[in-house]
Amino acid sequence: MYRTHTCGELRLSDTGKKVRLAGWVQRIRKFGKMTFVDLRDRYGITQLVFAEAINQRLDQHPLNREYVIQAEGRVVERSNKNPHLPTGDIELLVEQFEVLNEAKTPPFTIEEETDGGDDLRMKYRFLDLRRPPLQRNLWLRYQVARAVREYLDEQGFMDIETPFLIKSTPEGARDFVVPSRMNPHQFYALPQSPQTFKQLLMVSGFDRYYQIVRCFRDEDLRADRQPEFTQIDCEMSFVEQEDVLHIFEGMMRHVFRRVKGIDLPNPFPRMSWEEAMWNYGNDKPDLRFEMLLQNLKVRHKLYCEALHQTGFGVLDQAETVMAIVVPGAATYTRKQVDELTEWVKRPQIGMQGLLYVRCLADGSLKSSADKYFTPDRLAQLQQFCQAHPGDLILILAGKEDKTRKAAAELRLEMGNRLGLRSKEEFKPLWVIDFPLFEYSEEESLPGSVGRWVARHHPFTAPKPEHIAQMVENSPLILPGTDYQDHPYAKIKANAYDMVINGQEIGGGSIRIYQRDLQEKMFTALGLSAEEARQKFGFLLGAFEYGAPPHGGIAFGFDRLCAILGGSDTIRDFIAFPKNNAGRDVMLDAPSPLDEAQLKELHICLRKDQHEN
Amino acid sequence: MYRTHTCGELRLSDTGKKVRLAGWVQRIRKFGKMTFVDLRDRYGITQLVFAEAINQRLDQHPLNREYVIQAEGRVVERSNKNPHLPTGDIELLVEQFEVLNEAKTPPFTIEEETDGGDDLRMKYRFLDLRRPPLQRNLWLRYQVARAVREYLDEQGFMDIETPFLIKSTPEGARDFVVPSRMNPHQFYALPQSPQTFKQLLMVSGFDRYYQIVRCFRDEDLRADRQPEFTQIDCEMSFVEQEDVLHIFEGMMRHVFRRVKGIDLPNPFPRMSWEEAMWNYGNDKPDLRFEMLLQNLKVRHKLYCEALHQTGFGVLDQAETVMAIVVPGAATYTRKQVDELTEWVKRPQIGMQGLLYVRCLADGSLKSSADKYFTPDRLAQLQQFCQAHPGDLILILAGKEDKTRKAAAELRLEMGNRLGLRSKEEFKPLWVIDFPLFEYSEEESLPGSVGRWVARHHPFTAPKPEHIAQMVENSPLILPGTDYQDHPYAKIKANAYDMVINGQEIGGGSIRIYQRDLQEKMFTALGLSAEEARQKFGFLLGAFEYGAPPHGGIAFGFDRLCAILGGSDTIRDFIAFPKNNAGRDVMLDAPSPLDEAQLKELHICLRKDQHEN
Repeated sequence: MYRTHTCGELRLSDTGKKVRLAGWVQRIRKFGKMTFVDLRDRYGITQLVFAEAINQRLDQHPLNREYVIQAEGRVVERSNKNPHLPTGDIELLVEQFEVLNEAKTPPFTIEEETDGGDDLRMKYRFLDLRRPPLQRNLWLRYQVARAVREYLDEQGFMDIETPFLIKSTPEGARDFVVPSRMNPHQFYALPQSPQTFKQLLMVSGFDRYYQIVRCFRDEDLRADRQPEFTQIDCEMSFVEQEDVLHIFEGMMRHVFRRVKGIDLPNPFPRMSWEEAMWNYGNDKPDLRFEMLLQNLKVRHKLYCEALHQTGFGVLDQAETVMAIVVPGAATYTRKQVDELTEWVKRPQIGMQGLLYVRCLADGSLKSSADKYFTPDRLAQLQQFCQAHPGDLILILAGKEDKTRKAAAELRLEMGNRLGLRSKEEFKPLWVIDFPLFEYSEEESLPGSVGRWVARHHPFTAPKPEHIAQMVENSPLILPGTDYQDHPYAKIKANAYDMVINGQEIGGGSIRIYQRDLQEKMFTALGLSAEEARQKFGFLLGAFEYGAPPHGGIAFGFDRLCAILGGSDTIRDFIAFPKNNAGRDVMLDAPSPLDEAQLKELHICLRKDQHEN
Repeated sequence: MYRTHTCGELRLSDTGKKVRLAGWVQRIRKFGKMTFVDLRDRYGITQLVFAEAINQRLDQHPLNREYVIQAEGRVVERSNKNPHLPTGDIELLVEQFEVLNEAKTPPFTIEEETDGGDDLRMKYRFLDLRRPPLQRNLWLRYQVARAVREYLDEQGFMDIETPFLIKSTPEGARDFVVPSRMNPHQFYALPQSPQTFKQLLMVSGFDRYYQIVRCFRDEDLRADRQPEFTQIDCEMSFVEQEDVLHIFEGMMRHVFRRVKGIDLPNPFPRMSWEEAMWNYGNDKPDLRFEMLLQNLKVRHKLYCEALHQTGFGVLDQAETVMAIVVPGAATYTRKQVDELTEWVKRPQIGMQGLLYVRCLADGSLKSSADKYFTPDRLAQLQQFCQAHPGDLILILAGKEDKTRKAAAELRLEMGNRLGLRSKEEFKPLWVIDFPLFEYSEEESLPGSVGRWVARHHPFTAPKPEHIAQMVENSPLILPGTDYQDHPYAKIKANAYDMVINGQEIGGGSIRIYQRDLQEKMFTALGLSAEEARQKFGFLLGAFEYGAPPHGGIAFGFDRLCAILGGSDTIRDFIAFPKNNAGRDVMLDAPSPLDEAQLKELHICLRKDQHEN
């Protein structure tokens, strides 16, 4: 037996016991004829004392950082106790020890904070994982998974595994594919999600399904996206939206209580998609702070009289003008305001500039466009925005979509600067009543300007009262008409996102379960009957044999763990992540195959690799 | 709300309640002005009664099998109770109903036993999954997973997810590969197991790891193999073989107790690989019955004097002669014995014939080769085999490997014929002390006749007392020498298989954790230093930074579920399995990709598809 106890286990009550420990050398300190060694394992650190004869042996076989050793001896009370360590009351007086494995000096320090750069730590991930923050992260991840399973098991959900080698259906993101050796020139795809399988399981009568499951998307990786990621995937039969929201906010309350000891509100607040877009500028509001967007002018419609024919072209010609009121920021220096102006002009935000109005402590108002803003207008503006003395009003103007997005980003940025986004505070929210369709100008159907794409996915049901609107109208957007006036633009879905602290952590919908409606949906999205049959024939077929009403949700597990861990970086919560180029630098993968393997798979390498 | 109760829930005590149910129509019976409908969901069946006005409405909107309906009414006591149904004391007197979805007539009956053939049921898997046996199988699978997690969680194991897009290392079985779009002409591989990752996690200090994880092997599919399968994958640090066996037989006891209410023995019996091969002819003995193999002559060495120069060439020249004693089978007719002879001559077994000796009830002995077997010899044989009057001795002769394998198969076949292999009896066993290497004559190293391959995998450690034997000897097998005389043939590993009822359900080993020994192992297997570095450099590197002693095990989860479910067919315990050609016939996958997708992936289809 290599050890009788772990390095986190021994206490004062163990004094006098003969024990054996094994672990990694964290630190070595020499004091004359004594050596103190901190021995580490995942459970903690115990101090070893080498004295007299054994210390001499140690001099002949010196230890080093990260050596793996085994030590036997007696537990003794420390004279110099360490109150920061659970084992700090005792130490092990070593009588025998053995080096189980030596270690080269690690390329970076294995401590709470390390001196290693990102690339080095990715290459030596197995060493980085020894560091306490990553040990804690993976422990947290494991605890979240346990809490999720505990709740869903309790609620009668069945964990059912769905296949990974499935059929490629080029809808949504790109598939990763797998050439079949046994079926030449044919390919499997890796699932982007088990969506169709969980719906088939509902058709099979499984009623309440869940799975914590890997999913794959071959997308161009933005920061903090991974080509493989984990989803908590759930589906229920005989439910309406209300049932789904009830069950899954219950799950999240359970997880937060179990893992963080935090009670989330019951029920979660809800907000319609329209309201979220109007007040927060996006569909995932961060509710840790207010600072709502002020819609001064939207799509040329004036809401705030202060903007009526100011004579300032930027405002008068803008499609949309929005403001936010930053509390207590009237005292911002010119330099600070200039910096904000630069911030909104960055390519990621892309605005032309930033106007501001200072609401000074004495009640006076001072704007960056006094030439156009008369005192009356300023007063109107202040009143409309409900700004108080001491506040700073920031104003953005431009095209609707860009301006709203910029205002949303500016709101978050000001939240950061004012310290209003604490990682210890958690504000959950359901966003509901999403539009069923989104307009895409990149693709078109014949005779249509742009086309409709599914906002959630093609299996989401329209709200029952909007079905007629979909069935009775053509999806074509005629040249010369605004897509916003198309009947499809008004169709809402029973789709819902769970948002925490401005991050979408889950999303789902009530599904279509009738073949004719599903076919109509495919048509609306521009799939021909033949394409629909080829790609989703099995699902359409299944709907003919008694499909129950059903709906579900999927949570981004990596993201959820990151939020619970107070981090923005999902990579820190994945044991072996890929870098931003989709590479595993530790393994050096992907890598070339040899010719024999390619031949067996009936594929060859394309010469024109640099073309695309 | 679609339902207030499930179809398995209502009891006599619910009488008088107004309830709403939803489910599938299982059966419809008409009696005059009444209609009885069995409504089904995964929880059970409840009888609905349509009478009077509502029965008239039903006549206008007739139901059919597998329609999804919702019905509301009062729970009433049945006059004609059904004791076979948990809900058999009550019925629902329907006041309102609604058809939620119609159903075409299913292509096969959705009953305990179905009239559908294999192919049809695979195509309509979502309907087959509605049948009670498959519902029970997936429920059992879920219960096994829960019991496994419950035990491992309790024992301090952490569930840690490892990546699916990894590096191709053509060792062992063939990898499935995934072309990378972002890294042209490079490929990921899907993991055959998380072996190297779990070892890296040990190097990272995670100590006790587990995962219920999908694995992939692109093998030519034999019956009941799946290209993707699920493994219970486990690894521990600071352990010896004894620790691993202790923990994991504990896991299996827990699973059997939880899922089947069966107590497996504590501890499990153990058997060395040598003993298993000698007495049972393979490394996974079925201990539900005895009928040990009798080694009359092995590799030309005589153990039973009865075979000394019989004058019967078949026996005298055979490398090996083995027997089994079939209790009570002396009365087998000539036809039965002929049938057994044909059985051993089938290509799968491949023997030349079968000799037999009847031990008649009166004590006399009668053999099929009386010309050569004198009464003395027959008596010697009977004594050696410890056969009793009434028994039948079956004798096989030929080359060692083939004969031993045939004898093992014949033993199992006779066990079947005698009804000694009950699916309700479970006999677990550890097989230990496996050889580290196996001889392969198909591949060679320069200067060697054939080569050594890893019996378990290249990461398995030799027994400590056999390390010198490996390190000090060359792996080359010189022409003219028998591989069995090579020092490597004697090296044993701390490797172990868990066997239940003749099926290997888990296997593992204590691993190498020293870089130099691992390099020596790669050399022994014929990998050059360069190949070893390229394929496993990350692991060799990890061993230099303080790798702890470690070992682990992996269980075939699909197989375990099948055994617990009393079935030989893992496919029945997988929600969406592939057929024997590796196809998902429901999805029709794999399938062709379009040219644009291939181009993005920098690959093309090889023209010479019919060459290989």
